[in-house]
Amino acid sequence: MPKPVEWRGDAIRLLDQTRLPLTESFIETTDYRVVADAIRSLAVRGAPLIGITAAYAIALAARNSRETTLAGFRSDINAAIECLRSTRPTAVNLFWSLRRMQHVLERDLDVIALCRALEAEAKAIHTEDEESCRRIGEAGSALVPPVATIITHCNTGALATGGEGTAQSVIVTAVGQGKRVRVFADETRPLLQGARLTAWELKSLGIDVTLMTDSMAAWVMKNEHVDLVVVGADRIAANGDAANKIGTYGLAVQAHYHGIPFYVVAPVSTIDPELASGDLIPIEERNPAEVTHAGGIRIAPENVRAIAPAFDVTPSALITGIITDEGVYRPPFDFKQIHRSRR
Amino acid sequence: MPKPVEWRGDAIRLLDQTRLPLTESFIETTDYRVVADAIRSLAVRGAPLIGITAAYAIALAARNSRETTLAGFRSDINAAIECLRSTRPTAVNLFWSLRRMQHVLERDLDVIALCRALEAEAKAIHTEDEESCRRIGEAGSALVPPVATIITHCNTGALATGGEGTAQSVIVTAVGQGKRVRVFADETRPLLQGARLTAWELKSLGIDVTLMTDSMAAWVMKNEHVDLVVVGADRIAANGDAANKIGTYGLAVQAHYHGIPFYVVAPVSTIDPELASGDLIPIEERNPAEVTHAGGIRIAPENVRAIAPAFDVTPSALITGIITDEGVYRPPFDFKQIHRSRR
Repeated sequence: MPKPVEWRGDAIRLLDQTRLPLTESFIETTDYRVVADAIRSLAVRGAPLIGITAAYAIALAARNSRETTLAGFRSDINAAIECLRSTRPTAVNLFWSLRRMQHVLERDLDVIALCRALEAEAKAIHTEDEESCRRIGEAGSALVPPVATIITHCNTGALATGGEGTAQSVIVTAVGQGKRVRVFADETRPLLQGARLTAWELKSLGIDVTLMTDSMAAWVMKNEHVDLVVVGADRIAANGDAANKIGTYGLAVQAHYHGIPFYVVAPVSTIDPELASGDLIPIEERNPAEVTHAGGIRIAPENVRAIAPAFDVTPSALITGIITDEGVYRPPFDFKQIHRSRR
Repeated sequence: MPKPVEWRGDAIRLLDQTRLPLTESFIETTDYRVVADAIRSLAVRGAPLIGITAAYAIALAARNSRETTLAGFRSDINAAIECLRSTRPTAVNLFWSLRRMQHVLERDLDVIALCRALEAEAKAIHTEDEESCRRIGEAGSALVPPVATIITHCNTGALATGGEGTAQSVIVTAVGQGKRVRVFADETRPLLQGARLTAWELKSLGIDVTLMTDSMAAWVMKNEHVDLVVVGADRIAANGDAANKIGTYGLAVQAHYHGIPFYVVAPVSTIDPELASGDLIPIEERNPAEVTHAGGIRIAPENVRAIAPAFDVTPSALITGIITDEGVYRPPFDFKQIHRSRR
């Protein structure tokens, strides 16, 4: 399985996930603007991976800045941070990661030392996420019965993170513990991350996976014994409302109707304690062409209007638990103080 | 708008709906087996239209039979009926229509007269469906408020019936009455009848339509003021449980959660009083390639397992009303005597 992001010291190599699983191609660049484009085009996607990649982009910007004065250098890097910040509005990991880079930038060091410190911070964000995935897997796998049927949505695996994944790490860890797990993966229209990425990753890992359209999930819940649903998150508000890939909310409604536990899985860095509720999470509206096309082919008539919200918000009332790298949170959720207590 | 089926006296012309909206191509044939293939491949689809087309196929079989004895002729036509009956298992209109043709075949007439009677019966089934769509539109449009937002699934329009459609006839009739109607159309994976056919038909009719993926419906219900959901049906059991295109059940669960009226729309010929409940409706499982591909393009890795149920069953508890050509039925539904009272 190719790595979705690889730091090469003087460049970054990104797997172009838009072309998976049919083509494995890479973007290798020293230019942070190319990295920003890769995030915008979804060549790099998955909330934690976006955070990691953006941090490396800042390390690249630092390495390539020609400014020798501290003020000039900081201004260069701040411009790069602004550029990355504007790529995608919903996932909070991006902003969290850029804020960490900005804190480093403010340290009382010379330009050379700041360059080194920024690179070290990006690597730390990457390594911490890998460890975070491991802890998420441990916490979440405890909730998986010895024989389990699990529904998942979108892609939350190694391609979305710095490690084994978030929701997918729960599955992979449970299988590693000898549990017999069967997964139904939503294809996840419009961009088909479930069909293209999750089915591919789980199959490569030898895990029992069955692909279905998003519209089949309720029927599978009715007819199969589904033990739990696990999904990722792009931003979690202080009250536990969780933004995730479009379709998650409908899936949560269906799980609720069938009495099936519904878990949101994410590192605590995905929690945004400053937002009181999910209503305040900005939802990215993407190009309607993503809906009028599938797999690059036009499927709808010309000039038909379409909507393309990239995410939806699942209210905390529909969430059984939030599985994080700091354990499983249960309702009522209150994350207002979460980062304050950690740092 | 091209006609989905046209009787030409000695042949039938079928619009190949699998190639819409990008290509308008037709299958013109005198061979009932070609018609059976067209039904199997979904070139012809939509429960009422399948019934009409199968009836014409029997008229073709009658015209082309070389048997001059009554027994030989009846045996030929019965073979054709068997061939058509095996094309698709779920929609009851097919069986209902073939039963009507079989009753004609049993009349005490000579071969020539039987040929004429079979053709007349097929035409009658076609004409009756057109009238049935009109009455459905009248009954259903009374439930549409003057300014309305409607969600629909799959295709239930002129391409699915002998007239203006079933669920779509409700929309078209309401608009014809001067109501201001806005439609959100589910794309309806896997075969995208919503994107390909409904969006195309509604746009051609000048009706305000917005395309969305199936996974967006719940989010639209939460954020827009959705007044009602209208869907078609392929078979309705005596207790009101309704089989329809996969995704209908999940949509009904979501409408229920949001308190939005959910109407099933179909001619009474779609009601199968012999089935006590929806659990007894046979659900066609189609080729998994329909799920691993979209718009003819492979979207999932090779050798990934997929499921492809063509239909699901919405329990009557989730159905606000069943809009038919004989008026609107409200729960509790009891259709055990429905055809007995009509004939």
